Amino acid sequence: MNKTAETAAAIHKLLAKRWSPRAFKPDSVEDEDLVSLMEAARWSPSAGNMQPWHFIVATKDQPEEFQKLLGCLVEGNQRWAKDAPVLMLAVAKVQDEEGDENRCATHDVGLAAMSLVVQAMSLGLHCHQMAGVKRKHAAEVYDVPGGFEVWTAIAVGYLDDPDELPDDLRERELQPRVRRPLEAFVFSGAWGESPRWLPR
Amino acid sequence: MNKTAETAAAIHKLLAKRWSPRAFKPDSVEDEDLVSLMEAARWSPSAGNMQPWHFIVATKDQPEEFQKLLGCLVEGNQRWAKDAPVLMLAVAKVQDEEGDENRCATHDVGLAAMSLVVQAMSLGLHCHQMAGVKRKHAAEVYDVPGGFEVWTAIAVGYLDDPDELPDDLRERELQPRVRRPLEAFVFSGAWGESPRWLPR
Repeated sequence: MNKTAETAAAIHKLLAKRWSPRAFKPDSVEDEDLVSLMEAARWSPSAGNMQPWHFIVATKDQPEEFQKLLGCLVEGNQRWAKDAPVLMLAVAKVQDEEGDENRCATHDVGLAAMSLVVQAMSLGLHCHQMAGVKRKHAAEVYDVPGGFEVWTAIAVGYLDDPDELPDDLRERELQPRVRRPLEAFVFSGAWGESPRWLPR
Repeated sequence: MNKTAETAAAIHKLLAKRWSPRAFKPDSVEDEDLVSLMEAARWSPSAGNMQPWHFIVATKDQPEEFQKLLGCLVEGNQRWAKDAPVLMLAVAKVQDEEGDENRCATHDVGLAAMSLVVQAMSLGLHCHQMAGVKRKHAAEVYDVPGGFEVWTAIAVGYLDDPDELPDDLRERELQPRVRRPLEAFVFSGAWGESPRWLPR
C-alpha cells in the first residue's frame, strides 16, 4: 500500500510518507520514544513563547488508564483507536496568565502536534489525530482546570496490515490520499490569484 | 551560535535545529523550493480533510507586492521581516461549506504551518512565524472573503549573521532558546500527574 504524497516539487520523506492509519499493531512504544515525542512538541514555536500545549497520555500497559482515555473519544474513533498502544489528548491553554484569551492557543497546539507527528515518523511510528473527542466528558474525567480546553486526540503506534480492520474501515484505509490543488489555497498579490512560480 | 534544543531524548535534527531568527540574508528562495513549502503544507492532516489553510505569499523580487504584505505586520515585526526574501500570511477558513464553525480551522493551519517549517528546514531555510499581524488591515488589503480569518504571518529565508541586526534585536537573537520542562505539560492518569516514563 503506497500512500506517498504526489507532489509538484519534492518534499521531505517524513512529510511525504505521513498519513493517518486506523490499523495499529499491538506492539508498545518504547518509553524513550514517548519522551522524544514530547520533546518534539516541547521545542515547537508559539506566540510569545507561551507554549499552550498540554498532553494527557495513556499507554496500553496501564489498561484502566487506557480505557479512561479511550472513553473520551467518540464511538467512531474508539472502534479502531482501541488497538493503538498509545492514546493522547491534546489540551490548549486558551487563556494567558492575566485571564486574557490567547487567540493562537489552538493554532500553536497544532504546531506542537505536527512536530510530534514528524518525530513519530522519524521513529517508524504513525499518528492519527482526531477531532472526534468528547471534549466535555474528557475535561470532567481529567479535571481539566478552567482556562484550558481539550482540543483533539492522537493515536500513536506502528502500522498494521489493513486486513486486520473491519470491512468498512479497511475500505477507508485503502483509499488514496487526496488534497485540493495548490492553486486552491496559494495566492499572491490578491485573494484567488496564483503566484507566477506555481506550476501550471 | 548553537541554538540546538537540549532534550532528554533525541529528536530529529529538523526539529532540534529549528528556531525563529530575525536576521535573514537577502538571498532569494528558488521557485521550486517555494512550491515544496506549499506542497508540505498541502499534505498536512486536517479535521474531516477540510484543509482550512490558505497562504498569501510575497517575494522580494516583486517589491510592490512585498511592501503590501510587509505593511500587514505590526511595526515591531516589520523592523526585521523587511529583510526576509519571502513573507506569507496564513489564513484559516473558519467556516465549513454550510457556514458552520470549523473549530479545528486554526489548529489545522498550525499543523500545515509546522509542516511548511519542517520542509523549510530540510531545504536549509529558516522560518519565523508571527502572531503580530494587522489582521483587519490584511483582510481589507487582500479582500479576504467572509468565513476566512487572517491568522499569522511567516517570514522565510536563509539565516544571516546576527551582527546585521540593530542592537536590541541582536540581543534577542543571541538569547538561548527556553522551554517549560516536560513535567509542566505532560500528564498521565490525572491532570498534573507525571507519567512513569518521564525522566526525573
